Amino acid sequence: MSIITLTTDFGTKDHFVGAVKGAIYSELPDAKIVDITHEVSPFSITETAYILKNSYKSFPKGTIHIVGVDSELSDDNKHIAIELDGHFFVCPDNGLISMIASEIQPSKIVEINIHDRIESSFPVLDVFVQVACFIARGGNLTVIGKEIPEFKKIVEIQPKTNQQQNQISGGIIYIDNYGNVITNISKKMFKEIGKGRNYIVHARKHSFTKIFSKYNEVVSNESYSNQQYEGHKLAIFNSAGYLEIAIYRSNLDTVGGASTLLGLGYRDAIIIDFIDDIKPDFTHLT
Amino acid sequence: MSIITLTTDFGTKDHFVGAVKGAIYSELPDAKIVDITHEVSPFSITETAYILKNSYKSFPKGTIHIVGVDSELSDDNKHIAIELDGHFFVCPDNGLISMIASEIQPSKIVEINIHDRIESSFPVLDVFVQVACFIARGGNLTVIGKEIPEFKKIVEIQPKTNQQQNQISGGIIYIDNYGNVITNISKKMFKEIGKGRNYIVHARKHSFTKIFSKYNEVVSNESYSNQQYEGHKLAIFNSAGYLEIAIYRSNLDTVGGASTLLGLGYRDAIIIDFIDDIKPDFTHLT
Amino acid sequence: MSIITLTTDFGTKDHFVGAVKGAIYSELPDAKIVDITHEVSPFSITETAYILKNSYKSFPKGTIHIVGVDSELSDDNKHIAIELDGHFFVCPDNGLISMIASEIQPSKIVEINIHDRIESSFPVLDVFVQVACFIARGGNLTVIGKEIPEFKKIVEIQPKTNQQQNQISGGIIYIDNYGNVITNISKKMFKEIGKGRNYIVHARKHSFTKIFSKYNEVVSNESYSNQQYEGHKLAIFNSAGYLEIAIYRSNLDTVGGASTLLGLGYRDAIIIDFIDDIKPDFTHLT
Repeated sequence: MSIITLTTDFGTKDHFVGAVKGAIYSELPDAKIVDITHEVSPFSITETAYILKNSYKSFPKGTIHIVGVDSELSDDNKHIAIELDGHFFVCPDNGLISMIASEIQPSKIVEINIHDRIESSFPVLDVFVQVACFIARGGNLTVIGKEIPEFKKIVEIQPKTNQQQNQISGGIIYIDNYGNVITNISKKMFKEIGKGRNYIVHARKHSFTKIFSKYNEVVSNESYSNQQYEGHKLAIFNSAGYLEIAIYRSNLDTVGGASTLLGLGYRDAIIIDFIDDIKPDFTHLT
Repeated sequence: MSIITLTTDFGTKDHFVGAVKGAIYSELPDAKIVDITHEVSPFSITETAYILKNSYKSFPKGTIHIVGVDSELSDDNKHIAIELDGHFFVCPDNGLISMIASEIQPSKIVEINIHDRIESSFPVLDVFVQVACFIARGGNLTVIGKEIPEFKKIVEIQPKTNQQQNQISGGIIYIDNYGNVITNISKKMFKEIGKGRNYIVHARKHSFTKIFSKYNEVVSNESYSNQQYEGHKLAIFNSAGYLEIAIYRSNLDTVGGASTLLGLGYRDAIIIDFIDDIKPDFTHLT
Repeated sequence: MSIITLTTDFGTKDHFVGAVKGAIYSELPDAKIVDITHEVSPFSITETAYILKNSYKSFPKGTIHIVGVDSELSDDNKHIAIELDGHFFVCPDNGLISMIASEIQPSKIVEINIHDRIESSFPVLDVFVQVACFIARGGNLTVIGKEIPEFKKIVEIQPKTNQQQNQISGGIIYIDNYGNVITNISKKMFKEIGKGRNYIVHARKHSFTKIFSKYNEVVSNESYSNQQYEGHKLAIFNSAGYLEIAIYRSNLDTVGGASTLLGLGYRDAIIIDFIDDIKPDFTHLT
């Protein structure tokens, strides 16, 4: 019994998702199909990468992940199947994989070449399902594709540090269901550069001198109830390990979230300044 | 083979739901995972209670219900596991359970205490999944928690009756997919207080002298087609047993629903006046 | 093990879908339940038909499809169960089936008559689930219904051709997740009427002289990247075989799609003029 996950920008209204699931069950009656999401913004590789990177590892080794985002076949956009970190990915070769697993070396990459047998304007249904079910039955990747040395690399926009190593310049890469804005600055990088120094996080005109590890750490005064802190802005390392700017207990449909209330959007800059513990010299002012 | 349901405010775009499902399948490959909903308004305990109360009983006894709404651990918000009405609930102790099953006595309640082994900023993934899978394997609640005598009680806003017993004052507790507004006045209460008397339902400036039991009872004249009644307002006892104000065949995206067309919102008052069958005395007017 | 699909206008927030799934698992613990969609516009038979027509065939023969759109029982709207094309449909007799499978003769149609045993204001939960599970266990349709000769017919608005056979007049029947507008003009009809002639597709003030079979055929100049064609309008026969007006790589939430950018809506006319290969006579102009 194999698990096949679906990550697409199909939405959940149209017939696309139903058709794909029906085709999988027709091939593989015992499959377990799991929707990771069908709500990726149309054609967004960055969103797909963020979502898949933070969910695929929860699944058992051997899980097959179908990605149906920007998957129309062209000379620029081949279809590939990859074995990586014990998981299989069936997806377009559009740089997505390099954003999911930049440090992990794939065991095998093939360019899928069963298209000559399949005329399709819906490749996820006609090609990816075939490939996923073939893998699920234990088939060898090299039967459905030609082995290639590497997948397409997209250098995801990475945060930068300045020469003095006292500043990290990152950006917003994702906005979640609560309106929280998520940056590309990881806890790991923050610790390596910051080395325990004090810091100020700048997000447009907002600033933060503390990064929490749980949302309710913003509730600093125990004599107040949680509700009294609703609407407070905060910086946090989220459960995926990235710096996030959030509004405590936000609701995009009513009061708004960090994205709307603080005016922070996709690709906006986030700066962390680290402060060396040297007393400022004000003698020239006297 | 166990059924594990999920009721959360995670939305369906982010990685949260996929990660949780992957973790469950990793622990329990045979699990059947059912989404009740991931669209609860962020942090809304009232909505969670209404949705879960009206769906959990359809599931077989032994089903395990994970609730991921407002579940960050704090001194005020412990995590609990409960056996109640033959079902298991793994959820925060935020009053939710008291709104789902006020009359039913739980067989067992434990405060989950496996947190010392788990450092987590995503408790549904790291804690609730563990607990649910432990229960699914037949584990005893007292192994993963400390037995406590009761869960937190929130007195859900209940409809009131006046001293003369000729008026019920209730309120709107939920707005559904069609824009129908649902009140906290149950058919049971209506019958007990009303005792078969005539009545007028007041919802802002709108009033109703009949409460239907099916939507298409509004189609009173058989020589007209159903379509001619589209847009008619009506009061109905819905399938969950609550008084609901609806627009016949409404569509929030186009013509609107009761919430938008009649200007009715969450917590608005709904009054039922019962009319004693005594002829009014107008003699003083002559 | 049976597959039961769900196609409804319930939305995914309320308790309706969860309750229905729980009831199916209570009856049939081994069922595989697949959501086709719960996002049909409320009461829209046309949308339901388009979605189900383009997905049901992917499922294995024997699959049972529950349709919960406009399913309240009335004299005008009986409940039926049908065996058609090797699949089973449990749905209201509101014309839906005639739009899904106009050319296919059903093997059996019954009017469901178990309602006298069931008092229900939620027929999908109380009636359709019973019927679907009965079919899944191999039950004969005639046990739960009275055989009837035919289902209700709705003549779906069909494209017309003029007397000279050089024009097709169709209309928009569906708008998808990307904002693409889909017409009722099939590739089959286009080929039969067009007979290889040149043509112009008119959609309001927009016109197209080429209908693609893949979206990225719009990228005509290989020295430009795909991105430079973003926002280009195009006509295509989509994967379901219908003429579609699309915007290349559209996103309704940001730049918009064909529906918003070209001002095309449900039921708008789409005209194809075929051009006979006769040189125009311009001699009178000289």
